[in-house]
Amino acid sequence: MTAVLAYAAAQAKAPLAPYTLTRRAPGPEDVEIDVLFCGVCHSDVHQARAEWGGGLFPMVPGHEIVGRVRRTGGAVRRFQPGQAVGVGCIVDSCRQCASCGEGLEQYCERGFVGTYNGREYSGEPTYGGYSQRIVVKQDYVLSIPQNLDLAATAPLLCAGITTWSPLRHWKVGPGQTVGVVGLGGLGHMGVKLAKALGARVVLFTTSERKRADGLRLGADEVVLSTDPVQMKAQRNRLDFILNTVAAAHDLNAFTALLRRGGTMTLVGVPEKDHPALKVGGLIFKRAALAGSLIGGIAETQEMLDFCGAHGIVSDIELIPIQAINEAYDRMVRSEVKYRFVIDLASLSG
Amino acid sequence: MTAVLAYAAAQAKAPLAPYTLTRRAPGPEDVEIDVLFCGVCHSDVHQARAEWGGGLFPMVPGHEIVGRVRRTGGAVRRFQPGQAVGVGCIVDSCRQCASCGEGLEQYCERGFVGTYNGREYSGEPTYGGYSQRIVVKQDYVLSIPQNLDLAATAPLLCAGITTWSPLRHWKVGPGQTVGVVGLGGLGHMGVKLAKALGARVVLFTTSERKRADGLRLGADEVVLSTDPVQMKAQRNRLDFILNTVAAAHDLNAFTALLRRGGTMTLVGVPEKDHPALKVGGLIFKRAALAGSLIGGIAETQEMLDFCGAHGIVSDIELIPIQAINEAYDRMVRSEVKYRFVIDLASLSG
Repeated sequence: MTAVLAYAAAQAKAPLAPYTLTRRAPGPEDVEIDVLFCGVCHSDVHQARAEWGGGLFPMVPGHEIVGRVRRTGGAVRRFQPGQAVGVGCIVDSCRQCASCGEGLEQYCERGFVGTYNGREYSGEPTYGGYSQRIVVKQDYVLSIPQNLDLAATAPLLCAGITTWSPLRHWKVGPGQTVGVVGLGGLGHMGVKLAKALGARVVLFTTSERKRADGLRLGADEVVLSTDPVQMKAQRNRLDFILNTVAAAHDLNAFTALLRRGGTMTLVGVPEKDHPALKVGGLIFKRAALAGSLIGGIAETQEMLDFCGAHGIVSDIELIPIQAINEAYDRMVRSEVKYRFVIDLASLSG
Repeated sequence: MTAVLAYAAAQAKAPLAPYTLTRRAPGPEDVEIDVLFCGVCHSDVHQARAEWGGGLFPMVPGHEIVGRVRRTGGAVRRFQPGQAVGVGCIVDSCRQCASCGEGLEQYCERGFVGTYNGREYSGEPTYGGYSQRIVVKQDYVLSIPQNLDLAATAPLLCAGITTWSPLRHWKVGPGQTVGVVGLGGLGHMGVKLAKALGARVVLFTTSERKRADGLRLGADEVVLSTDPVQMKAQRNRLDFILNTVAAAHDLNAFTALLRRGGTMTLVGVPEKDHPALKVGGLIFKRAALAGSLIGGIAETQEMLDFCGAHGIVSDIELIPIQAINEAYDRMVRSEVKYRFVIDLASLSG
């Protein structure tokens, strides 16, 4: 057991504050990692504030983790001390169900073990990346391509894979026009990845001031989704829509933009239900509304390798951990371009 | 021009009554058909009562037409006088858009010409199968397999193809468990076709008294969808759900039954929207909610040929056309097993 400095919410809605947790000594299959950077995901706020109900406290959030291997267990061959590695939302799964067998650990039928606010199958609570160090089973550790900036890579572990997985599953590529709804942490990765996959990208935002950024990030077109004229011009034009907006909104305004046979995939669960769906919008063009949850381990490695090959990272604002509570408030107000990343050096500094 | 006896609604909500319409003389591409039988579709009631708004009156409903070729235009090679043929919901389409090019005339981008309550591209209103005779372009006429009962074949032209098309598009077959929601005109065809395609079929009905019928029609299991215990037992078990219920109902109760990666396809547009969709039910297992509209011409022929090979027809109650208004009322009360078919001999008798 090792004592490790961290930041935790002592209880629901409490501000995050310094906390010392203990990590297990690495077993044969374990990789012990010095955390360098950890992205700040919207779900960190929801969970630390117990907005999804429940929550295990004290809670150490963080599932967009990049660090360097400190030491490895005796059975670990793929990782060496000093190597840059990543950890995302999943630190274990049953390895026996059909989903795990297909590399879709995010849909593990037993329920995967979340990186924080979860429980190991042994019952021990899990603590995330807002900490100096983490110990993770080797099969859930990712390799980081050498050419990528480590801080800006951290958000790929959740925001990156959550957008990559549906883009790949629904076979987005050259010759297609893809809509990305929302320009936040997820949306800005969706734009970059869809563009790099060869699609024509149309970004939908409610904020005119995001137009220039959308174009800079790779969108071929930016549409103000509050403008009926701009929206009407996109009707029946999109092969696929990646909808990253978790707030309740009118889905029908977007299904109307799908081509025949198109799919809109949602990656966010709203607190209140979306307004009523007009199913005629699906029936009259054999369209679909689907959902997608993060991504599997092999797929996350595939995404990281793709990002290495294409030089893709997140646009980030690096913060010391002491600024985390202010960062949460700013994130709730959408005042971040486009992901806060914690520099964990600040924790022991 | 030929004067043809028919039954028409003179105006919205008027009862259907005898009416004489004129049909064009067959042009080179036309097939003139003596109508023998015409199925009574729920949409006939909705349109005759102008419940979908608008409507061209006088209206002669009917798009589940089976008859015999009376004469053919000079360019017609595939059909001979005396041959048993069918006409479904579509009597023309643009033939130039991508949808038509793929044999998906139901999604024609110009809008297909409906068999009744529509307009030919020339502007002439169309009149359906509640009539002695109809003239249809040869490319929209179907061949009826010789072994099938002609009266019981009529409903295949709408109820059959509307359920066949999604079962085929979503690749239903052996090894799969398929749910069919609702046991009416569409649902009873869905059960028969899904079973014949090799799937294990679970029928969902709100009516316990339909259990025996469901099993007789081919369902492997019948679930009372109002019973939470029976519903819970089906969770995460269905690869595909064909939902034939047009009335507003809780879709979430059924998405909960999908396996990971499953799709529920709706084929009916409710008058009022379905209650709010819980999108988490899609996200947490990469499931989809989709829609499907009737089917294309080639696909309708494929379905008819399949039905011929498997001896599949609709369960019907044959009525004289004089009973049509009572039949509408009974159909609205779901008092039909499972499709009324008009014997057009009654019209001139």
